[in-house]
Amino acid sequence: MLDVCLLGTAGMMPLPNRKLTSCIFRYNGSQILIDCGEGTQVALKKQSISPKPIDVILFTHYHADHISGLPGLLLTMGNAGRTEEVTMVGPRRLKEVVEALRIIAPELPFSIKYIELTEEVEELNLYGYRINAFKCVHRTDCYGYTLSIDRGGKFDPERARAQEIPLKFWKVLQKGDTVTEDGKTYTPDMVLGGARKGIKVTYCTDSRPTRLITKMTTDSDLAILEGMYCDPSMQEKAEGFKHMTFYESAKIAADANVKELWFTHYSPSLVHAEEYMPKVKAIFENSVLSRDGQSVTLNFEED
Amino acid sequence: MLDVCLLGTAGMMPLPNRKLTSCIFRYNGSQILIDCGEGTQVALKKQSISPKPIDVILFTHYHADHISGLPGLLLTMGNAGRTEEVTMVGPRRLKEVVEALRIIAPELPFSIKYIELTEEVEELNLYGYRINAFKCVHRTDCYGYTLSIDRGGKFDPERARAQEIPLKFWKVLQKGDTVTEDGKTYTPDMVLGGARKGIKVTYCTDSRPTRLITKMTTDSDLAILEGMYCDPSMQEKAEGFKHMTFYESAKIAADANVKELWFTHYSPSLVHAEEYMPKVKAIFENSVLSRDGQSVTLNFEED
Repeated sequence: MLDVCLLGTAGMMPLPNRKLTSCIFRYNGSQILIDCGEGTQVALKKQSISPKPIDVILFTHYHADHISGLPGLLLTMGNAGRTEEVTMVGPRRLKEVVEALRIIAPELPFSIKYIELTEEVEELNLYGYRINAFKCVHRTDCYGYTLSIDRGGKFDPERARAQEIPLKFWKVLQKGDTVTEDGKTYTPDMVLGGARKGIKVTYCTDSRPTRLITKMTTDSDLAILEGMYCDPSMQEKAEGFKHMTFYESAKIAADANVKELWFTHYSPSLVHAEEYMPKVKAIFENSVLSRDGQSVTLNFEED
Repeated sequence: MLDVCLLGTAGMMPLPNRKLTSCIFRYNGSQILIDCGEGTQVALKKQSISPKPIDVILFTHYHADHISGLPGLLLTMGNAGRTEEVTMVGPRRLKEVVEALRIIAPELPFSIKYIELTEEVEELNLYGYRINAFKCVHRTDCYGYTLSIDRGGKFDPERARAQEIPLKFWKVLQKGDTVTEDGKTYTPDMVLGGARKGIKVTYCTDSRPTRLITKMTTDSDLAILEGMYCDPSMQEKAEGFKHMTFYESAKIAADANVKELWFTHYSPSLVHAEEYMPKVKAIFENSVLSRDGQSVTLNFEED
């Protein structure tokens, strides 16, 4: 199962009752954080989520509202006793930006591994998550991410017994590895059914809508997309500043056949978005006007 | 009159109900901020104080909890329409540290003037405030500050009339300037009484107690001093990490003959400080266990 918590929903600047956009994923003891604005460490504390198991931090881009909380978070992770390496992923200049910010967090008890994205789409496999980064269209280099928990086929003990596969190899085969003993080779496909449906979440803010976003979002169990503006009069501003409106994100969700859509990265001027939700839901019914701390546990559907 | 608002009281890391230590002063349309940790801009918003009129930012030192919120604040000041220069004051490396952090706030609609402190005590006169910076004893270069609003003597119209000083020069003389016309020189002492008592506030965190702190704090209307630890068992930790306990700050306040003492920069572990207040008040009666947003308006005492 995958726990998702949208730590904040604010774009541009943090507000007393709305923290900057950031999202944390928890799976199998490993946490992945997307973006870390000013106050993200407080949002984590408020949700009683320890920052210590954050193994990976994905950055969409380096506008301050998406990374300004990083030095404080790193220091707090160190104070919490983290000593294991932390992997950071983001567009070009990742190392340069993070190392500059670390002028106020120079000594950490863990190392940092940097993965800079340069391609249109890149796939990374980290800590049991399959991560697909995809390029967005913003005023600066920006990426969206899909996080997938893949699931192999179901192990069939009957087939294993029928083929006289020694019990000691069952676990290895179940994990998808091949094993050989006494000249006999046992392969996973001998005991496993077809791959089962996994879990897929897409996160994308700070972009104009693109075909690539729709493609990457396709069949997500949950899509967390930008809702910078809601009032139709802000369309021009959205285009100028390269953001997405609620309507544009709802269209992506509908075209991409997602199960549920959460909005995030609200403009500081957005206060009564609920008034526009009927129009938004007419485009994509399962749209949620998320609040800070919006959480869900996504489970595998099949046995 | 001088408005003082302690925006936050937390040391080390921000907490959901305690923002990082920072203080704002408002006098005659000009604001001075001391320190700017992660979330200070939110604390300002919560207090309905616009960041736009912040003319000066004083930094005690560059540990992250005292400066991590700077890039976000600067951007928000820019978004609020500030175009006038902002003066920053702090220990050595000020420009280097701020410019590094500005990797995520490179474009601002105002310029920044840097004043780096190097002496034991330095005096600055900025925007009607007399600022005295004084060196502290911390694990890194650190300064405390006194902010004084000086007050000249009272203007005596009877004396001005008696000396036949033209009415048009009264205002100039009242301001303390000298004026000459037709070979006649008029000086302020001709019409002003002796200097009247002004307002003085001292702010000092992140230091071991020193004689200099006591000296600089002397006769303050308000002293805001560090209260990192309260439990007497933390004395050794205070000495090791170079912080002050409630008792040490109360002793400074008593020796310095201040009117009122506020504590700030509480350790994240400090939750029931009120239990220790009787012991603290036995050292200095007018001690206040300040909370985020603690505010006071200090007025001139004399007419």
